[in-house]
Amino acid sequence: MAQGKVLSGAGLRGQVAGKTALSTVGKSGSGLTYRGYDVKDLAEHCQFEEVAYLILQGKLPNQAELDAYKAKLKALRGLPQALKDVLERIPADAHPMDVLRTGCSMLGNLEMEQDFSQQQAATERMLACFPSIICYWYRFSHDGVRIDVETEDDSIGGHFLHLLHGEAPKSLHEQVMHVSLILYAEHEFNASTFTARVCASTLSDMHSCITGAIGSLRGPLHGGANEAAMEMIEGFTSAEHAEQEMMGKLARKEKIMGFGHAIYSESDPRNGIIKAWAARLADDVGDKVLYPVSVRCEEVMWREKKLFCNADFFHASAYHFMGIPTKLFTPIFVMSRLTGWAAHVMEQRADNRIIRPSAEYTGEELRKVTPIAQR
Amino acid sequence: MAQGKVLSGAGLRGQVAGKTALSTVGKSGSGLTYRGYDVKDLAEHCQFEEVAYLILQGKLPNQAELDAYKAKLKALRGLPQALKDVLERIPADAHPMDVLRTGCSMLGNLEMEQDFSQQQAATERMLACFPSIICYWYRFSHDGVRIDVETEDDSIGGHFLHLLHGEAPKSLHEQVMHVSLILYAEHEFNASTFTARVCASTLSDMHSCITGAIGSLRGPLHGGANEAAMEMIEGFTSAEHAEQEMMGKLARKEKIMGFGHAIYSESDPRNGIIKAWAARLADDVGDKVLYPVSVRCEEVMWREKKLFCNADFFHASAYHFMGIPTKLFTPIFVMSRLTGWAAHVMEQRADNRIIRPSAEYTGEELRKVTPIAQR
Repeated sequence: MAQGKVLSGAGLRGQVAGKTALSTVGKSGSGLTYRGYDVKDLAEHCQFEEVAYLILQGKLPNQAELDAYKAKLKALRGLPQALKDVLERIPADAHPMDVLRTGCSMLGNLEMEQDFSQQQAATERMLACFPSIICYWYRFSHDGVRIDVETEDDSIGGHFLHLLHGEAPKSLHEQVMHVSLILYAEHEFNASTFTARVCASTLSDMHSCITGAIGSLRGPLHGGANEAAMEMIEGFTSAEHAEQEMMGKLARKEKIMGFGHAIYSESDPRNGIIKAWAARLADDVGDKVLYPVSVRCEEVMWREKKLFCNADFFHASAYHFMGIPTKLFTPIFVMSRLTGWAAHVMEQRADNRIIRPSAEYTGEELRKVTPIAQR
Repeated sequence: MAQGKVLSGAGLRGQVAGKTALSTVGKSGSGLTYRGYDVKDLAEHCQFEEVAYLILQGKLPNQAELDAYKAKLKALRGLPQALKDVLERIPADAHPMDVLRTGCSMLGNLEMEQDFSQQQAATERMLACFPSIICYWYRFSHDGVRIDVETEDDSIGGHFLHLLHGEAPKSLHEQVMHVSLILYAEHEFNASTFTARVCASTLSDMHSCITGAIGSLRGPLHGGANEAAMEMIEGFTSAEHAEQEMMGKLARKEKIMGFGHAIYSESDPRNGIIKAWAARLADDVGDKVLYPVSVRCEEVMWREKKLFCNADFFHASAYHFMGIPTKLFTPIFVMSRLTGWAAHVMEQRADNRIIRPSAEYTGEELRKVTPIAQR
């Protein structure tokens, strides 16, 4: 089990900013639990929709509840024409996270959460249609096609892969998507979740909270690490080449993404899980480069810096083996973490006080305005 | 001078979440200072653009600097066609804050902040075109007209009133807009500003930070108080009627918006300033109801509850006297507070650590996943 670091200082590190019943990070089980269940246990036995239901509704569904939940989500995949019109006006070189941020915000104009009794419905709608939003824009702006976003796929991950590739995904890929979406679903008071809670504390609507969270996840210190890891490893032609380049980077003190964590100190419990699936995918595609390169990177970082892979590092190769373009890695994170964000919004609303901290003032002493003619 | 309350407990109240050189609230001068200048002093001697320059650049401009700044902003009022297309697809019954949130997010797709060297330019663009965004949507959705958003008005407030009413504003109104925008420009670590800082701490882009802040300001506990105050006072037909209704509300313990403050304990320094301008506007339009009603509400709340008017209360009548529809009150707040938000983003970036607090766990103990067939 990972022990929490002793934390203090800037960035509210180690300061308790509120209560949650949703997850623990670095406290029990393998280091990450959702509503008391170890993430390893969930990733081994559940579909993503079961975990979304758990996080949002508070308990694991039985088969009938799961079937009903999935059927409901399946019916919500379509996009209003006005939203498609918006997506068609976003250029191909836009940042995909900006596309999702705008798509979510626009959805809030067209299907506003009128009051908090609609919070589950608003969340289900987003869970169902975020893959539609990102893929509709991606395929239109990159391939010039207007895709039909309503598919019969069984799962959110399957729906996403189907829209992206234009054909139903193979079973292995759908399975990996379940695991990946489970691993990223919830992570206590990380920066994007905290953004959602601060927004929720003003009693703003669900779309505002999620739009804000997407904007925070976009930041390179937060959600972009798997993309950065991919950009790095695809430049390595062999394990030996990776070793050499990594040693050079370390010598030059370059920042290397995908390693270490703000809270976990010894390992990231999500890494072993996604690494095993990356190995299966490598085997499936007959890869002899990217997976061995990734393993060597992990070895070098541990040997040289005692830094472990976090959830992002082996996600890079796993996604790549499924043919997912690197720029869409972080939007997948959104499709998953949306569950945690929305559950935190609901939790904040249920016991709310506006989040309004204080600041230490470091500026000028009181002074008088000099008339502009004398400045 | 207002004394800070002794604060503790939920919502990070009284906890220092970072440093700022931008403002003090409840500490010196009349209780609110921007970079050391009392807000009363600024509201009396400056135009809004001077204060925006002060907040964003760190010093009050001289005449040549102010002229150049205003000329630059004036040239940035136009909207790209793709953004107009988006605004035309937002229905008339959308929440105007959702419109601004979406407009800001879309702007980020079309004119992305590529790196932090563009942060001032990205901010200036938003300062110049937010009035265009909200008025373009408002006039198109409500009046069916596509307005020309590029005017020759001297100020941001003048530009807004011109677009809204279709004619250049009278000098008194432009003057009141300067004061109003100055009063709302900056307020330390309030919830929307803190949202922007949390987002900035992931090193995300300026449009993400501002989009998130707009979503937080939308919340009824934060930015909507002047609209709520307006809705209340326009139901009162005389000071006597107001007295009677207010006493009834107090007896029924109804929430009354526009009074009291999370930080100020004795008075809101912004109230006296906007109240004086509301009186001038009442005089100008020959009002014999709304202003006396507002004054009576203030008297009743102080007499009965020792609660003072905050910045929002007399803003309601002031905006109303200038013919501004109630639903556009909070978007004006955005046009102003954008300066504070952006300056806080810049400050966060200059000395950053990702904002990632901890949570107190109140949920289930570790438990095992029951296979779905046995649930």
